[in-house]
Amino acid sequence: MPETIEPKNNWKFKLHEIIYEADTPMGKAFDIALFIIILFSVVLVMLESVKPFDAKYHDTLLAAEWVVTILFTLEYIARIICIKKPSKYIFSFYGIIDFLSTIPLYISYFFAGTQVLLAVRALRLLRVFRILKLIRFLGEASQLGRALKASRIKIAVFIYTVLILSVILGTVMYLIEGEDAGFTSIPRSIYWTIVTLTTVGYGDIAPQSDLGQVIAAMIMILGYGIIAVPTGIVTSEFARQSKLEHDIHDNTQACPHCLEEFHTSDAHFCHKCGSLLNEP
Amino acid sequence: MPETIEPKNNWKFKLHEIIYEADTPMGKAFDIALFIIILFSVVLVMLESVKPFDAKYHDTLLAAEWVVTILFTLEYIARIICIKKPSKYIFSFYGIIDFLSTIPLYISYFFAGTQVLLAVRALRLLRVFRILKLIRFLGEASQLGRALKASRIKIAVFIYTVLILSVILGTVMYLIEGEDAGFTSIPRSIYWTIVTLTTVGYGDIAPQSDLGQVIAAMIMILGYGIIAVPTGIVTSEFARQSKLEHDIHDNTQACPHCLEEFHTSDAHFCHKCGSLLNEP
Amino acid sequence: MPETIEPKNNWKFKLHEIIYEADTPMGKAFDIALFIIILFSVVLVMLESVKPFDAKYHDTLLAAEWVVTILFTLEYIARIICIKKPSKYIFSFYGIIDFLSTIPLYISYFFAGTQVLLAVRALRLLRVFRILKLIRFLGEASQLGRALKASRIKIAVFIYTVLILSVILGTVMYLIEGEDAGFTSIPRSIYWTIVTLTTVGYGDIAPQSDLGQVIAAMIMILGYGIIAVPTGIVTSEFARQSKLEHDIHDNTQACPHCLEEFHTSDAHFCHKCGSLLNEP
Amino acid sequence: MPETIEPKNNWKFKLHEIIYEADTPMGKAFDIALFIIILFSVVLVMLESVKPFDAKYHDTLLAAEWVVTILFTLEYIARIICIKKPSKYIFSFYGIIDFLSTIPLYISYFFAGTQVLLAVRALRLLRVFRILKLIRFLGEASQLGRALKASRIKIAVFIYTVLILSVILGTVMYLIEGEDAGFTSIPRSIYWTIVTLTTVGYGDIAPQSDLGQVIAAMIMILGYGIIAVPTGIVTSEFARQSKLEHDIHDNTQACPHCLEEFHTSDAHFCHKCGSLLNEP
Repeated sequence: MPETIEPKNNWKFKLHEIIYEADTPMGKAFDIALFIIILFSVVLVMLESVKPFDAKYHDTLLAAEWVVTILFTLEYIARIICIKKPSKYIFSFYGIIDFLSTIPLYISYFFAGTQVLLAVRALRLLRVFRILKLIRFLGEASQLGRALKASRIKIAVFIYTVLILSVILGTVMYLIEGEDAGFTSIPRSIYWTIVTLTTVGYGDIAPQSDLGQVIAAMIMILGYGIIAVPTGIVTSEFARQSKLEHDIHDNTQACPHCLEEFHTSDAHFCHKCGSLLNEP
Repeated sequence: MPETIEPKNNWKFKLHEIIYEADTPMGKAFDIALFIIILFSVVLVMLESVKPFDAKYHDTLLAAEWVVTILFTLEYIARIICIKKPSKYIFSFYGIIDFLSTIPLYISYFFAGTQVLLAVRALRLLRVFRILKLIRFLGEASQLGRALKASRIKIAVFIYTVLILSVILGTVMYLIEGEDAGFTSIPRSIYWTIVTLTTVGYGDIAPQSDLGQVIAAMIMILGYGIIAVPTGIVTSEFARQSKLEHDIHDNTQACPHCLEEFHTSDAHFCHKCGSLLNEP
Repeated sequence: MPETIEPKNNWKFKLHEIIYEADTPMGKAFDIALFIIILFSVVLVMLESVKPFDAKYHDTLLAAEWVVTILFTLEYIARIICIKKPSKYIFSFYGIIDFLSTIPLYISYFFAGTQVLLAVRALRLLRVFRILKLIRFLGEASQLGRALKASRIKIAVFIYTVLILSVILGTVMYLIEGEDAGFTSIPRSIYWTIVTLTTVGYGDIAPQSDLGQVIAAMIMILGYGIIAVPTGIVTSEFARQSKLEHDIHDNTQACPHCLEEFHTSDAHFCHKCGSLLNEP
Repeated sequence: MPETIEPKNNWKFKLHEIIYEADTPMGKAFDIALFIIILFSVVLVMLESVKPFDAKYHDTLLAAEWVVTILFTLEYIARIICIKKPSKYIFSFYGIIDFLSTIPLYISYFFAGTQVLLAVRALRLLRVFRILKLIRFLGEASQLGRALKASRIKIAVFIYTVLILSVILGTVMYLIEGEDAGFTSIPRSIYWTIVTLTTVGYGDIAPQSDLGQVIAAMIMILGYGIIAVPTGIVTSEFARQSKLEHDIHDNTQACPHCLEEFHTSDAHFCHKCGSLLNEP
């Protein structure tokens, strides 16, 4: 559209290209800078939570936090002004995350209780996902996502079964072990069952009685066995997906003579009729 | 059958349709209500087991328990009267569960010892399975079930091998570690071996001697490795099942003569009657 | 061979048929009886190790142990006299196990120190494997065995890699954590690394320093990831094996007309040329 | 090259053949001797770290360490003098490892602080990898490597996701559990999350509050489920690799014209040059 050539040169368009795209050198530099600032801000949040470190360098950490917050504020404003429909960005997933990762320090400046805001600042990490656009990870990640999506019903059935099992086995263990062994209530018993069934095994609660240990051993073998089920579901789905993809890659060129379609990716001639294939 | 049109309009038929089917809006509403009451009754059982909560709200919990029990009683009676052959329902799997999940409070009203009845009330959770009829989960669940059924002999061989291994290794560890390290008897030693082999690892019993730790390390690597076996069994079975399903889906073409539907993708003739198939 | 009809009727032949085969009703009964006695003798060994139980019922356990020993002695003698080449049985795997599971009580009768003999008696459990002949488990077990055998080099490479990793990471953790955190020597550090890498995680030794916990977290994610390797090896081998088996089942009949071989198992007509197939 | 027949007979060439190749009996003997010395030196390092053992046999261990060091020194010198381009060896991966595994004792002879040098000496174990050349393990190991390499992006995405999850969930747990339950800082909380998510479960830190245990249970089920993802990735990659290999093995026929070897099983014409293939 030649009539829109003028807006392409204004600063808003350039800013949009830098912030939202990753094709230009400036865009790439922006994404890398953003990636580093996000990691830096996450490390800041972590260090603040380490009491001896925070006691020693509290002022430095707070200053760094203000720098990060101001940078995120500038980014947030820039993202709004350079987009045509600001509302589309503001109410998008990333828009909300950007807002939530900018606001905490301002709130804590006016109010007390920084502790609660830690969770909100942790959301800042979600901005890291945005960097995924840069790399070809997305293509692969979307394959992972597709495989998980295709097997979501099976996974739901599996988790449902695990929960039902945990409630029943947890109640049984509550009856057998009782409060002296740490099985103080059915919910705690169910917690123990999940700890055991998933082979985590903290050992903060452990069966003491003989019958309890026999049932615990059965739960372990059960858990050890049923881990095969999600693995089986996801693996067979992955295999199907990669086969589909493989078939598609093979299919891209058809023989111009006999129309045979399944050629290996390095084929120059049709393996059915010997005609020359068009180069891909 | 036009002569049976009259009974179709009586209340028993309508009740049957509501309780046993999920096609009508009323039937769906009944199933959802039942699902919620079941979950609510399970939560009640759990909360009762939390001592401080029970001490505070004992009367409320008991009242709620009576409401649930009366609702389940009404449902149980309704299920019996609206079915043609009540004995078929009463002695079915769900019939027994329904009875067992209704009776506990009545028994506890006449007798003491509510503690023992917790297990019976936990069975109430099995009613949750009934809700599975509603959703298409069943179709998928039956595929999971078929895969597990097809590999049941392999799984049995595997569990058998794990148990044999646990008994032998448990006895060896009992001899090496002795009572001071917590390996007080062979059964307890076997319990420890299962805890280790399944990678649960509570740490309530842990080897102290050098030789014991070497053997423990070997058991861990063994357990880490043989987890591959059930996974391999189930995965290859899943892959086979989904391939079978895939093959069937691929062959949309039916034989024009005998209507046989399951043809391999390169078939030119029907493998049942020998008629020429329409090319796909 | 009609001239050998006479020995077939003598008691040695009959005894051989009962003890070594499982086709006749008597042979099956013998195998089941043996299975029960083996399980019983294993439970005896376990119960003897439970101190309070042994203190109470020592005489009963000893008597039962003598009964089992005499039964095993009779079985051992019977196996020797009814076989043509006794040496072939005596020096076979099962022959040695049978001897080792018979002898302990006789030795303990003449010598003291029953404790050491527990291990020998535990070998009695290996006799349980013999019962496997009975059931069709063997066919499946041999498939499991073949899959494991075919991937034994890959598994060896994997275990070798895990051990190398454990030695290196264990030494690193020994240097970082030191003796105060329980990492008292490199072997103990390696033991901890294997406990962590295999996701067992007892918690008897746990890193205390920050750097130690960072490296521990990396070891965990590594262990969590490399569990995929044995699973991948075994699964792909299983898939190949079951595919091979599947192909063989399909292959049994060839079309008498065009010699096409890959028919589905329910095919009556050749899907290539439409000729009638010979019924399998 | 007949003019180079003379250097083949000098001692440098022979030494090169013994040290760098494994085809001659002398070469094999050298590799086996090296393998044993390496294992021996690793065991030495381990034993030195066991305090009571070191206290008792310190002089013997030191003497043995000197023997090993001198042997490694001789090997290192031999490797340099028998190769044409010593710099190529010295700056190679194995050259550096060989240097690092020879030098520690010399340094400790002149300086104090043997403790730090343990890590350097542990590198000696990496020399064990060199022995892999001998055996056909390499062929298989390279297949393992190829499978892991082909799925490296998926694995990176997976680890990235696990880390993001750990940071978010760790922060949430820090907020819920607080310092009393051992969640003293966000990094420690993240450490706990990784311990739980990977199903290691030490139990040195465990949630105490009800909400904390609910979230912990969710993390466990999540971890139990997502272990399927690396498994699925590696397994489907293995399956693809072994299928590729299988296809190649099937196609023993080479093109008579261009000698291209990798044809699909139903190929009639070479896909490289279009020549007619000999029917198999």
